[in-house]
Amino acid sequence: MSALTAALDELVTANRILAREGVVDSFGHVSLRHPDRPDRYVLSRARAPDCIEIEDLMEFALGGTPIDPAGRTPYAERFIHGAVYAARPAVLAVVHHHSPSVIPFTVTAARLSPIMHMCAGIGTSVPTWDSRTRFGDTNLLVTTEDMARDLADALGDRSVILMRGHGAVVAGASLREVVFNSIYLQLNAALQMQAHALGEVIFLNEGEVAAVRRTRGAFTFERAWEHWCRRAGRSYDARSMEGPLAGG
Amino acid sequence: MSALTAALDELVTANRILAREGVVDSFGHVSLRHPDRPDRYVLSRARAPDCIEIEDLMEFALGGTPIDPAGRTPYAERFIHGAVYAARPAVLAVVHHHSPSVIPFTVTAARLSPIMHMCAGIGTSVPTWDSRTRFGDTNLLVTTEDMARDLADALGDRSVILMRGHGAVVAGASLREVVFNSIYLQLNAALQMQAHALGEVIFLNEGEVAAVRRTRGAFTFERAWEHWCRRAGRSYDARSMEGPLAGG
Amino acid sequence: MSALTAALDELVTANRILAREGVVDSFGHVSLRHPDRPDRYVLSRARAPDCIEIEDLMEFALGGTPIDPAGRTPYAERFIHGAVYAARPAVLAVVHHHSPSVIPFTVTAARLSPIMHMCAGIGTSVPTWDSRTRFGDTNLLVTTEDMARDLADALGDRSVILMRGHGAVVAGASLREVVFNSIYLQLNAALQMQAHALGEVIFLNEGEVAAVRRTRGAFTFERAWEHWCRRAGRSYDARSMEGPLAGG
Amino acid sequence: MSALTAALDELVTANRILAREGVVDSFGHVSLRHPDRPDRYVLSRARAPDCIEIEDLMEFALGGTPIDPAGRTPYAERFIHGAVYAARPAVLAVVHHHSPSVIPFTVTAARLSPIMHMCAGIGTSVPTWDSRTRFGDTNLLVTTEDMARDLADALGDRSVILMRGHGAVVAGASLREVVFNSIYLQLNAALQMQAHALGEVIFLNEGEVAAVRRTRGAFTFERAWEHWCRRAGRSYDARSMEGPLAGG
Repeated sequence: MSALTAALDELVTANRILAREGVVDSFGHVSLRHPDRPDRYVLSRARAPDCIEIEDLMEFALGGTPIDPAGRTPYAERFIHGAVYAARPAVLAVVHHHSPSVIPFTVTAARLSPIMHMCAGIGTSVPTWDSRTRFGDTNLLVTTEDMARDLADALGDRSVILMRGHGAVVAGASLREVVFNSIYLQLNAALQMQAHALGEVIFLNEGEVAAVRRTRGAFTFERAWEHWCRRAGRSYDARSMEGPLAGG
Repeated sequence: MSALTAALDELVTANRILAREGVVDSFGHVSLRHPDRPDRYVLSRARAPDCIEIEDLMEFALGGTPIDPAGRTPYAERFIHGAVYAARPAVLAVVHHHSPSVIPFTVTAARLSPIMHMCAGIGTSVPTWDSRTRFGDTNLLVTTEDMARDLADALGDRSVILMRGHGAVVAGASLREVVFNSIYLQLNAALQMQAHALGEVIFLNEGEVAAVRRTRGAFTFERAWEHWCRRAGRSYDARSMEGPLAGG
Repeated sequence: MSALTAALDELVTANRILAREGVVDSFGHVSLRHPDRPDRYVLSRARAPDCIEIEDLMEFALGGTPIDPAGRTPYAERFIHGAVYAARPAVLAVVHHHSPSVIPFTVTAARLSPIMHMCAGIGTSVPTWDSRTRFGDTNLLVTTEDMARDLADALGDRSVILMRGHGAVVAGASLREVVFNSIYLQLNAALQMQAHALGEVIFLNEGEVAAVRRTRGAFTFERAWEHWCRRAGRSYDARSMEGPLAGG
Repeated sequence: MSALTAALDELVTANRILAREGVVDSFGHVSLRHPDRPDRYVLSRARAPDCIEIEDLMEFALGGTPIDPAGRTPYAERFIHGAVYAARPAVLAVVHHHSPSVIPFTVTAARLSPIMHMCAGIGTSVPTWDSRTRFGDTNLLVTTEDMARDLADALGDRSVILMRGHGAVVAGASLREVVFNSIYLQLNAALQMQAHALGEVIFLNEGEVAAVRRTRGAFTFERAWEHWCRRAGRSYDARSMEGPLAGG
C-alpha cells in the first residue's frame, strides 16, 4: 500500500470510528490535508460516515472546489474544512460533528471545560460560534466560504469550537488526534452535565491542562486508535511511536 | 420488483429502522398511503415492528376497514392513520410511536421545540393532545374513528403531535421523511432535557426553522436512510435525488 | 415437546429476555408455579439468568425445600417466590430483580406511578418494603421464610413491590405478564425520573390505570413476547390468543 | 494449563470484562500479584484492555521495574499497582480505571456511598485523592513511586479510592473481587446520581454494609464472573466455591 493509499485508508477508518463511537450519525465529516499537496484536502462525497469507502474520497482545493468530482456530490459544508486548513498551516485533520452530548452546551450559557485528564485536549476555553450573529436567520449550515472563514476566525488557534444549535469543529495535527479529541469532547460534555447536577465542579486548572497537552505523545493516541479500530471492525495499522508515555 | 412491491419493501424497512433506532419497541406502527389508491393505506397486521415481513402488510380503507384481512389481526389503533390521511391529502406516510425520550414532554408543561438544525422538521410548536379532555378516563388507546379525528384535528397541518401519557404521531410526504422526523424528534427531546438542566435554552427561532425546512431536500433524507438501512440490516435502495444539498 | 417441557423452555426464555433487556444482570430470578403441582414452583439453580439452561431448573416446595437438588445450589432468596405463591393462589409467575432504573425509587421518598399507558400494569400505588423495619441491619437478602412472608404481606394483592436498597418483586398470572410488567416498570422508572426534572408530572389517574388493566389481553403480552424472543435469540412459540386488542 | 497460565488467562479475561462492561475504554489497567512471587505483580504492556492477549503480560518488581521487558512498553502508571501491593500484603489484585459514572464524584463534593446491597463492597466511606494537594499542577498521571505511595496511603485499608479529575483504584483479594467491585462501583455512582435528583437518599448504613461484606462469599463473585465471561466472549473456568450463598 502506498503512503497515500494508507492515508486514505486511515481516513475511511476515522469515519467508521466516529460513527461507531456515536460522535457522528448520518451526518458530520472528517477530512485530511492532502499528504503531498498542502493546498488540498481529502473528504468523502456526501455520504453517512459509517458507509464511506475509499472510492468515496474526493480531493478539494482549499476554497472548496472539487478537483475531480467524477459525478460525486460533495458535502454542502465542506467549506469548514478548507477555511481551517487555510488559516492554520499546522492543522492536518479536521472533524465537523453533531455529537449529542455536546449540543446542550451549544444552546446554553454553560461553559464546556475539561473535568478529567483524558479530555484536556479540548483546551480550557471552548467558545461557541453563533451563525445568527453575522448571518441572521439561516438553516445554520456553513455553506459558503464567507461563513466558514468567520467560523475559522472564531476557532483561532484552539482545538475545538462549538456551533450554536448545530455541533462542533475539532482541528489537530493528525487524524488520530482529532478523532481522540472528538471522542473525549463528547465524554467530557456528558460527564460535565452529570457533575453539574451533583454540585459545584472542580475543573482542571490551566496548569494541569497545559501539562497534559505538553506530555501527551503519539503513544497515547495510538493506544486508543487500536481500541477504536477493533470496535469499528477496521484493521489496525500500527504507527511508529514517539513522545512520552502519557495517558496512563 | 414492481413499484408497489418496492414501496411495500420500503415500508418493511421503515418498521425495522424505527425498531433499530429505539423509536418503537414492541408497539408503535408506520403506514404508507397506497401509491395507486389514495383512498387506502398500507399498514402491518398487529405485530412488533422489528418482526414485520412483507406478508404482514394489509390494505385499509381510510375508515380503518381491512380490504382483505385473510385472517390477520389489525392494530387496534389503525384509526390514527386513516384520520390523518383523510384530513391531509398531501400526507403520504404516518408514524405512531412511544419514543421513550418524548414521553416526559407529554406529561409535563415543558414545550418541545427544536434546539438543533437536524430537528427543525418537528416544527416550532409541538402541541400535546390529551385523550382525557374529550373522552375521559380511557385506556388511552385511539381505537375509534371519533378519537382519531379529534387527534387529527389537533395535529392540524403540523408534522408532529404529542399524546399525553402515550406517545406521538408524525406525518409527512414520504416514509423517509416521517422516519427522519421521528428519529430527530427523539433526539431533540433527549437533548432538550439535558439542556434544560444546564440553564436557559436558546431554541432555533421561527426564521431558522423555516429556513431549514425550506432548504431540506430529498438528498438529506437519502443520506440518513442509507445509514439507517445499514444499521437495521436492510438492503439500501437508492432513490433518484432532488433538491438542495441541505443537511451538512 | 410436552406441555411441561414447553413451560420449562418458556421459563428459560423469560430468564434470557430479562437479561437481554437489562432488568437482571448476574443476579435476579424468575419462577413459574408448577403447571401440574400448584404446591410447587420451578426456579433455576443459583446462576446468572443469561446463562440458564433447561437443566438448571429445579422444583421447590412452597417453603423453599428443593424436591430433587441433584447437587445443584439453589438461590439464597428463593423464599420470596414461595411466600408469594403461598399467599396468592392466582399468581403463577414471580420475578425478583434489581432493575437499575428502579433502585433510585427504593431509596428516596419519590413515589413510582404510571406515567404512560404501557406501564399501567404496575398499578397506581407501588409501595416500598424496607428490610430494616422488622429485621434491622442485615445484608438485605430475603433468605428466610419469615422475611419472605413479611415481604409478601407488604405486596398484598398488588403486581409490584419495591425493596429498599435492593430491587423489586413482580407477581402475575403468567410468565409473559411478569416479564412485561418488569420491563415496563423499568421503563416507567427511567421516564418518570426524566419527567420530574422537567416539572410537575401528570400521572395516569386511577380510572385510566383501571381501564388499561381491564382491557389488556393476552394479545398485548404476545406481541411483546415475540419481539423480546427475537432480541434474546430465543425461538418464539406462539400462543393461542384471547382478549381484546389492547396495547395499540 | 498450569496454575500460572490459568492465572494469566484469568487476567486477560479480567481486562476483557472491564472493557465489555464499560469500566475501561482505551485506558485503565488491572493487575494480579504474582501467584508464586508475592514481591512481583503481573500487568499488561501498555495496550487497550480489550486488545490484550496473554503475550502482552509482563512481570514487574513492586517498585515498577519490568523483569523481562522484551521490547514491550509498560503502562506509565504501573506504579499505582506496586505501591498498593507493597502497602497491603493481603491485596492480590488491583484495578485502575476511569469509569465514566465515577468521574462526577471525583470533581464535586458529593460523597459516593452504597445505595444498594450489590454495591456494599465499595465500603461506606469512599475518599477522593487529589494529585494537586501534594504534587501541584501535573498531568494528573501517577508516574512515580512517590505519587503512587501517596495514593496508596490515602487508600489505606479500603477497597476503593477516587482520584480527582482522573478515576479510581480498586484493591481486593482476587481478580473476581476487584472486577466485581469495579462494576458495582460504576453502577452505584450512576444510580446515586439519579437518586440525588429525586430527593434525599437513604444509604445503606454501616451495619448493613458490614453485614453484606461479612456474608458475601466466593459464590457471589463466581456467579457474576460466569455472566461477564459470556458477555465478553471469554470461556468460563469454574472455581471450586466456598462461603455462604450471598448475593441473592
